[in-house]
Amino acid sequence: MLYFQSDYILGAHPTVLEALVKTNLEPLAGYGTDPYTESASKKIKQACQLEDAEVYLLTGGTQTNKIVIDTMLMPYEGVIAADTGHIAVHEAGAIEHSEHKVLTVPQYEGKLNAQDVRQLIEFFYADSNQEHMVYPGMLYISHPTEYGTLYSKAELEELSALCKEFDIPLFVDGARLAYGLASNDTDVDLATLAKLVDVFYIGGTKVGALAGEAVVFTKNNMPKRFNTRVKQFGAMLAKGRLLSVQFDALFTNDLYFKLGEHAIDMAEQLKVILREKNYPFYLASPTNQQFVVVTKDHYQKIAEIVTTGFWETLDENHIVIRFATSWSTTQEDIDQLKELLPHYEL
Amino acid sequence: MLYFQSDYILGAHPTVLEALVKTNLEPLAGYGTDPYTESASKKIKQACQLEDAEVYLLTGGTQTNKIVIDTMLMPYEGVIAADTGHIAVHEAGAIEHSEHKVLTVPQYEGKLNAQDVRQLIEFFYADSNQEHMVYPGMLYISHPTEYGTLYSKAELEELSALCKEFDIPLFVDGARLAYGLASNDTDVDLATLAKLVDVFYIGGTKVGALAGEAVVFTKNNMPKRFNTRVKQFGAMLAKGRLLSVQFDALFTNDLYFKLGEHAIDMAEQLKVILREKNYPFYLASPTNQQFVVVTKDHYQKIAEIVTTGFWETLDENHIVIRFATSWSTTQEDIDQLKELLPHYEL
Amino acid sequence: MLYFQSDYILGAHPTVLEALVKTNLEPLAGYGTDPYTESASKKIKQACQLEDAEVYLLTGGTQTNKIVIDTMLMPYEGVIAADTGHIAVHEAGAIEHSEHKVLTVPQYEGKLNAQDVRQLIEFFYADSNQEHMVYPGMLYISHPTEYGTLYSKAELEELSALCKEFDIPLFVDGARLAYGLASNDTDVDLATLAKLVDVFYIGGTKVGALAGEAVVFTKNNMPKRFNTRVKQFGAMLAKGRLLSVQFDALFTNDLYFKLGEHAIDMAEQLKVILREKNYPFYLASPTNQQFVVVTKDHYQKIAEIVTTGFWETLDENHIVIRFATSWSTTQEDIDQLKELLPHYEL
Amino acid sequence: MLYFQSDYILGAHPTVLEALVKTNLEPLAGYGTDPYTESASKKIKQACQLEDAEVYLLTGGTQTNKIVIDTMLMPYEGVIAADTGHIAVHEAGAIEHSEHKVLTVPQYEGKLNAQDVRQLIEFFYADSNQEHMVYPGMLYISHPTEYGTLYSKAELEELSALCKEFDIPLFVDGARLAYGLASNDTDVDLATLAKLVDVFYIGGTKVGALAGEAVVFTKNNMPKRFNTRVKQFGAMLAKGRLLSVQFDALFTNDLYFKLGEHAIDMAEQLKVILREKNYPFYLASPTNQQFVVVTKDHYQKIAEIVTTGFWETLDENHIVIRFATSWSTTQEDIDQLKELLPHYEL
Repeated sequence: MLYFQSDYILGAHPTVLEALVKTNLEPLAGYGTDPYTESASKKIKQACQLEDAEVYLLTGGTQTNKIVIDTMLMPYEGVIAADTGHIAVHEAGAIEHSEHKVLTVPQYEGKLNAQDVRQLIEFFYADSNQEHMVYPGMLYISHPTEYGTLYSKAELEELSALCKEFDIPLFVDGARLAYGLASNDTDVDLATLAKLVDVFYIGGTKVGALAGEAVVFTKNNMPKRFNTRVKQFGAMLAKGRLLSVQFDALFTNDLYFKLGEHAIDMAEQLKVILREKNYPFYLASPTNQQFVVVTKDHYQKIAEIVTTGFWETLDENHIVIRFATSWSTTQEDIDQLKELLPHYEL
Repeated sequence: MLYFQSDYILGAHPTVLEALVKTNLEPLAGYGTDPYTESASKKIKQACQLEDAEVYLLTGGTQTNKIVIDTMLMPYEGVIAADTGHIAVHEAGAIEHSEHKVLTVPQYEGKLNAQDVRQLIEFFYADSNQEHMVYPGMLYISHPTEYGTLYSKAELEELSALCKEFDIPLFVDGARLAYGLASNDTDVDLATLAKLVDVFYIGGTKVGALAGEAVVFTKNNMPKRFNTRVKQFGAMLAKGRLLSVQFDALFTNDLYFKLGEHAIDMAEQLKVILREKNYPFYLASPTNQQFVVVTKDHYQKIAEIVTTGFWETLDENHIVIRFATSWSTTQEDIDQLKELLPHYEL
Repeated sequence: MLYFQSDYILGAHPTVLEALVKTNLEPLAGYGTDPYTESASKKIKQACQLEDAEVYLLTGGTQTNKIVIDTMLMPYEGVIAADTGHIAVHEAGAIEHSEHKVLTVPQYEGKLNAQDVRQLIEFFYADSNQEHMVYPGMLYISHPTEYGTLYSKAELEELSALCKEFDIPLFVDGARLAYGLASNDTDVDLATLAKLVDVFYIGGTKVGALAGEAVVFTKNNMPKRFNTRVKQFGAMLAKGRLLSVQFDALFTNDLYFKLGEHAIDMAEQLKVILREKNYPFYLASPTNQQFVVVTKDHYQKIAEIVTTGFWETLDENHIVIRFATSWSTTQEDIDQLKELLPHYEL
Repeated sequence: MLYFQSDYILGAHPTVLEALVKTNLEPLAGYGTDPYTESASKKIKQACQLEDAEVYLLTGGTQTNKIVIDTMLMPYEGVIAADTGHIAVHEAGAIEHSEHKVLTVPQYEGKLNAQDVRQLIEFFYADSNQEHMVYPGMLYISHPTEYGTLYSKAELEELSALCKEFDIPLFVDGARLAYGLASNDTDVDLATLAKLVDVFYIGGTKVGALAGEAVVFTKNNMPKRFNTRVKQFGAMLAKGRLLSVQFDALFTNDLYFKLGEHAIDMAEQLKVILREKNYPFYLASPTNQQFVVVTKDHYQKIAEIVTTGFWETLDENHIVIRFATSWSTTQEDIDQLKELLPHYEL
C-alpha cells in the first residue's frame, strides 16, 4: 500500500529523532527553561531575520490557534478568517470554546482577499449598532491554505497594510509553512513573512517533528504572562525538551527548509503523474497538497493501492480527494505510484 | 416629534405599571418564589394550552437567548440560525461568550428554510471529519423575525419535524411574539407554536413590560438545576416580583394579545400611509416593523419630523429604515404621521 | 405576620415608583442612552464628590460582581475575598463561571484584614512557582459585609494603600451601602469611600429600588468597550430607563441616604428589643442586619409571628438567624415586634 | 552536579524511546486511530483487570486534570480537593479557566480525609440556600499526593463509598502513580485502585515517557463526544503515536511497574542517607519524593553539589526542599550523594 493521505503519517525525521535520542539522558530543567528552548528560539529568530522576535513552542496546531487567538484578542473581539479556514470549520469550535467569534469572509481557492476583509471591517465601523456587535480584532490566514494555495508577497503586503490601517494583528497559521516557503511558485520567504505579520507559527507536526509548533511574535508583542496563560490552557509541557530539542534540530543546517524542498520536489512529480493519468485537478496548488476530482467508483478502485484523504462530496457521483506529499515521501513512493495508479476515465 | 424608531420607547403599559404599584407594599419572598411567579406561570401555561410546560422569567432578550442556548446545548454543540438572526449579528457575541458557535444558514427576508437546515445537518453527518467539527445541537428561529416576517404553520411544522428527525430542540425567540400572533397574515396561534417547539419565549420588554421575557419549556425539558445556572449568569433577580407581577398582568384578561392586536392595527394604518406616500417597501412585513428604502437625503429630511430606526446601507445613496409601531403607538401618532410625513420622490 | 427576613421583601420606595409612573409615557432612547441615565450619573458623581468618575447602571448584585470582576481582571488573575464573601460562597460560582478564581483569606465577623491580604500577596510573589499560580489581581470587600459589619476609615485606608502598593484595584460591593453610610458607628462617608477605592457599587435593589446597582469607576478606569462587554453578558437592558429613573429618584433630595438612616433607626430599636428579650447576639452589627443565636425549638416558635432569615447551623441545637430592617420597615412593625416577640430562655 | 530536583529531568526511558525509534517509519493513521493506541489501551485495561474500562491518552497532567474535570462535571458543579491539591494551587487556575470552582477541604500531609469531605457535602445539602451555591460534583485526590504520601486501601474504600453515597465520581490524579504502587508501605495495587474509583490517570511524563497521561474511565463513563471535546481544548495530537507507542512500551513486560520499583529502591537508600546525615524530614513519605527542612544557609551550601526542589518557606530561617528520585536515578547518583552531601547541623 502507498500512503498519500496526509503529511503526518510517519513519526519524526530521522535527524530530529536522533536529536531526541542524543539528548535523552541530559538532565534538563522543565517547563521551557532548558537550554534547547533558548537555542531553538535563537536559531528561529535568525532564520526569520528578526532579532527582537519572541518565540514560544507549543504542541499542536489547534492548540496554537486557540491560544494565540485568545491571548491576543480582547474579550469583545472576534477573528476574521476565510470561511474554509481551519479555525472556522475543523477545530470543533475551539475558538468559540475560548469565547471568540470567527467572523468569516468568502474564500477563493482557500484564500481570502483584502477587499472582502476591508468591507467587513468598514461595514462594522459604519454600523451605528457596532457596540452590539463583535469587534473585528485580528486577521487569521493560513499559508499554505487548507487547499495548498499560497498568498503572493503583494497579497500579504496588502493584508498587512490593511491590518495596520485598522490596528489589528495579522496572524498566519503556518502548520505547513515549510511547504509554502519551498514552493516553485512563491515570492514569499521566511524573512518576508516574518516582517509582514504580527504573529505566525512554524509548523513542526507536519514537517518532520513528532509534535510541535513554534509561535513567533514578531514585534515584542507576546501577551503578558504568556507562560501562565499557556498553563491555564493545560498546554505547558513539563518536559519542554520534547519540543525544544526537535525545533533545535529542525533549525540546524536548514533542515526545516530542506524538508520543505523535498516535499515540493515530490509534489511536482506527483502533479506530473496525476496530469498524465488524466486526473482533473480541483484547483491549482503550488504546494504539497494536491486535490483531484474523481468518481466515487474510481475512489473505491484506487483505495486498494493508495491511501488518499477524502476531502468533500462534489455532487452525487464525484468527490474531491487529496494526495499529500511530505518530508517523508520517498522517490520510491512516487515511482510506485506512477506505476500502479490507474488512468482516470472521465 | 413623532416616535417610530422602535417598539421599546415608552415604559410599561399602564395596566402593567398599575399592577406593580398595587402590589408594591406586599411582602414577597425573593428569587422567583413569590406567588405572582406561580400565578403568571399558570396563566401562561393556560394561554399556551400546555399544562405540563415549565415557565421561567428572565429580564431581557439577549440574556434569554444566551441562557437558553447554553443550558440546553452540550459543550460540543452549536446552534443553527439564519445569518441575520439576532444571535448571529446583534448580541455582541453573547452566544460565543458562552462557548457555542452559531452555525449560520442563508436567510430569506429574515427567515431560514428547512432545506438549508437539512443540508447543513446532513453535510455534517456525512463528513468523515465530523468529530473535528461543531455538532448542530439546536435550531434557533425568531418569530417574528428581525425583519418582521413570520413563519407559516406549515413552515413551523416542517422545521419541527426536521428537528425531531435529528433529535435537536427547536427554539423560538419570541421577543416580539405578540405582534406575530396578532398579524392579519398568520395561521400560527400561541397553542400551535407551543406545541411545535421545544422551548420559546414570550417577549415582554417590547410588548408592554418594563423588562421581562417568559421562557416556556414545552416538554418538561427545563435544564437541570436551572435556578443555579441562571444565578451563575448573574441573571437571577432578588426581587423576582419585578418580572412576575408584570407577566401576571400581561396574561390577565388577554392583555398581552390585545397589545399585539393594537400594534398590528396601527401597523396596518402605517402601511397604508407609507404606500400612499410612495415609500418603497424593502420587504413585505405582516407585523409591527415596516422597512422602507429611502435616499440619505430624504432620511435627513424626515428625521426632523419622525424618529425611525436606521437599518442598513443599501448602496451609495440609499438606506433601509424601520418604522415600528407597538402597544404604545396611538391613533394620534398615526394621524399626525399621515399629515406630516412628506411624499417620497423616487 | 411580621416580616424581618430580608431587606428586599417589598417593591420600590413610593417616591422611586412614582418616578417610574411619572416618566412612563416619555419616549426615551434605549440601552442606557436616555437623559435619566445622564442625570442619575451626574447626581451620583456629585454625591461622591468625584467629577471624573464614570457611572454605569446594572440590574443585580451577582451580575455586577461578575461583570466588574471579569472586565477589570486579566485572565490570569483572581480576586481576593474573605472566605465568607458573597462572591466566595453565595453566587453559585458566578465568578468562576467567568473563569476567575476567588482567592480567600480568613474573615473576622465578615471582614478581612490587611495583614492576611498582604501575606497572601507576598507569599505569591515570593513563590518561585508563581507562573503556575493564579495572580492576585483585585481585592474585593463588601461594606457592609454579609454579617452587617463595617470597615473603619482607617481600615479602608490601609487596604487602599496595600492595593496601591501592589497595583491592584480595590472593589467594594455596596449592595447595602446606604445602611453602612447611615450607621451610628462609622466614620466612612460616601466621598471618603469613593476616594479610597477603584470601583464600587451603590446598591439599589436592597435600598428602595425594584432592581438596580450603580457601579462607580472612580478613576476613569471603566474597562474598554464596557457597553459591548455588558451586552455579551446579557446584562444590557433595552429599557435602560428602568434603572436610570430609579437611581435618578434615589439621588434626588438625598433620598438614598434618608432610606439608609431610616433603616438604621429601625435597627437600633430592633437591637434594644432583642437585648431586652434576652436574645444572644451572634456578633455586634452596626447596620440593618442583626444576627442572633436561638435554639431550633425557639425558631419554630417565633416563626409563627415573624419571618427571619435562617443563616447557619451553629451546633446540634442552635442556629443563627437574621433580623433585617430596611427602608420599608415601619415603626408599627417594630412596635408589634416588641409586643409579640417572646422572651428567649437560654 | 547531582540532580534530585524533580522526577522529570531526563527524557524517556531507553526502552520507551527505542519504541518510538523502531516504529518511526511505520505509516500510521492520525488522531488516536493508530493500532498502538488500541494495543496500549488493551494492555492498560489488562493491568487494571478491568475489561470494560475506556482508556484515553492525553499529553500532560494539568491538561488531563482540566479536561477530565470539565467533561465530567455539570456547569453548576465544582470539584472537591485538598487545599494543597495540585488543581487548587499549582495549575494557574486551569480548573476555573474551565469555569469550575475548586471546593477545598483541609489537608493532612497532602491527604484529605473522608470526614471533612462528608461535612462539606452534608453542609451543602443542609443549606437552604444551596441553589445559590456551587454543587459538590466530584472528589479529586492525588495518589501519591503532592507530598509523596499515600492513601491506604481502607481510606480509598471510605472515600469511594462516600462518593457512591452522594453519587459523585471519585477522580484520582496518578501523575506519579507508579511510585505509589511500588511503595513498600502501601496495600493499594492497580486493580484495587481501578475498582474503587470512577476515573484516574496513569502518569507517563514523570514515569519514563517524554509526555503522556493515560486516563482510565473505569465504568463505561467516558463523557459523550470525548474526542470532540478534547479537540476543543486543543489537546488532540495529530500524531497520536507519540503517546500510544510510549504507553504501549510502558505496559509491555511490566516496564511501568519496574520503573516504579526502581525509583522506590533509590528513594529508600536516599532516606537512609538523609537520616544518617541528620536532615529533619518534613513528613514521612513512602514514595519517591522526600521533603526535608533545612536552613537557608545550608540550602545555599548544598546547591553547589545537588539540585533539589525548593518547596516552601517555613519560617524566617528555614525552608522545605524536595529530593526526588525517579526511574532515571542511578545507583551511582545515590552513591555520590552519600559521599558528597554534607551533614546537616541543626
